[in-house]
Amino acid sequence: MKLFWCPRTRASRAAWMLAEANLQYERVTVDIRDPNAKRDPAFALASPMGKVPALEDGDVRMADSAAICIYLADRYPASGLAPALDDPQRGAYLYWMVFSPGVMEPALGEKFMGTKPNRFSAGWGDFDAMIEVLEAGVHTGPWLLGEKFSAADVMVGAGVQFMHMFGMLPDSAPLRAYMERCVARPAYQVAMALDE
Amino acid sequence: MKLFWCPRTRASRAAWMLAEANLQYERVTVDIRDPNAKRDPAFALASPMGKVPALEDGDVRMADSAAICIYLADRYPASGLAPALDDPQRGAYLYWMVFSPGVMEPALGEKFMGTKPNRFSAGWGDFDAMIEVLEAGVHTGPWLLGEKFSAADVMVGAGVQFMHMFGMLPDSAPLRAYMERCVARPAYQVAMALDE
Repeated sequence: MKLFWCPRTRASRAAWMLAEANLQYERVTVDIRDPNAKRDPAFALASPMGKVPALEDGDVRMADSAAICIYLADRYPASGLAPALDDPQRGAYLYWMVFSPGVMEPALGEKFMGTKPNRFSAGWGDFDAMIEVLEAGVHTGPWLLGEKFSAADVMVGAGVQFMHMFGMLPDSAPLRAYMERCVARPAYQVAMALDE
Repeated sequence: MKLFWCPRTRASRAAWMLAEANLQYERVTVDIRDPNAKRDPAFALASPMGKVPALEDGDVRMADSAAICIYLADRYPASGLAPALDDPQRGAYLYWMVFSPGVMEPALGEKFMGTKPNRFSAGWGDFDAMIEVLEAGVHTGPWLLGEKFSAADVMVGAGVQFMHMFGMLPDSAPLRAYMERCVARPAYQVAMALDE
């Protein structure tokens, strides 16, 4: 398995996921900050947008951190990072997996750009609605699905940490506590150590 | 199975998906355009953002059209709408499933608002990059995964049709042809008939 990776990018989410799943892989650095850097042709096949992370696993080629986390958790069920296809928690699990790219990222983008979406028509609502839903989501805890940590916590936890890093995480005790639980995980620290 | 639905919303994507999968369900109309309308408490449980579509399937409760399509295609494999977990096409399939909420929707939002994202830092790149990737994705055809129609075509096809409806689809022969193949499907027409 090959992970196309670049330090201090969303590729850290895939590295965290691979460490949680205890999967071995080769890390291929792609300098996405330099648009003129020569790219591995395998990277272009895996990542149509030229974004990291991207993954090659046998004949599987794919990109996008959420898609990669969904793929890995289902493909390697021994990791215990996803409810089975017929588990009642499967719905909430997939909801959170898509919440990160589909709600958190665009809501954060709007906040950053200072634009005000139409809360009704935008699929992601708006920044404040996103924060409210996140707070409710981690209220019971310790993880999004309750007692059991899942790949959804990799995606959402990394997103919360990202907001914190950019000073955009509102003062929220439940979100701060959730983030602290996430970053305390040994697999998170393995992924962060790669960035240094 | 219950689908929380509202006419002329992204709930049509779930209705199209259910028709493709030939699944029976009860349709519960939620007037999301009226913020003061009384809500079914089951809807609030299924949809933290108060968005449609949302789904109740036994003990499964979930929202988000992409998450719902991933769920249904895997849970009801007789529909043949998703590659199996160990199929080499699984990566591309999940990439496209997440592409719709994670790339198409925010790129369209930016285009609509007239803002210019940072193509490097935004996970979704920008509108033009999104269109280029879509064109390449449907180039071989007839469907995103080749010969076989999948749930990814429901999500991406509905997104392309949405752009067309709002006059935001660039003049692109491959995208127009792809959209025409999508809207010609009987299951698409079943879903559209509900809107009338």
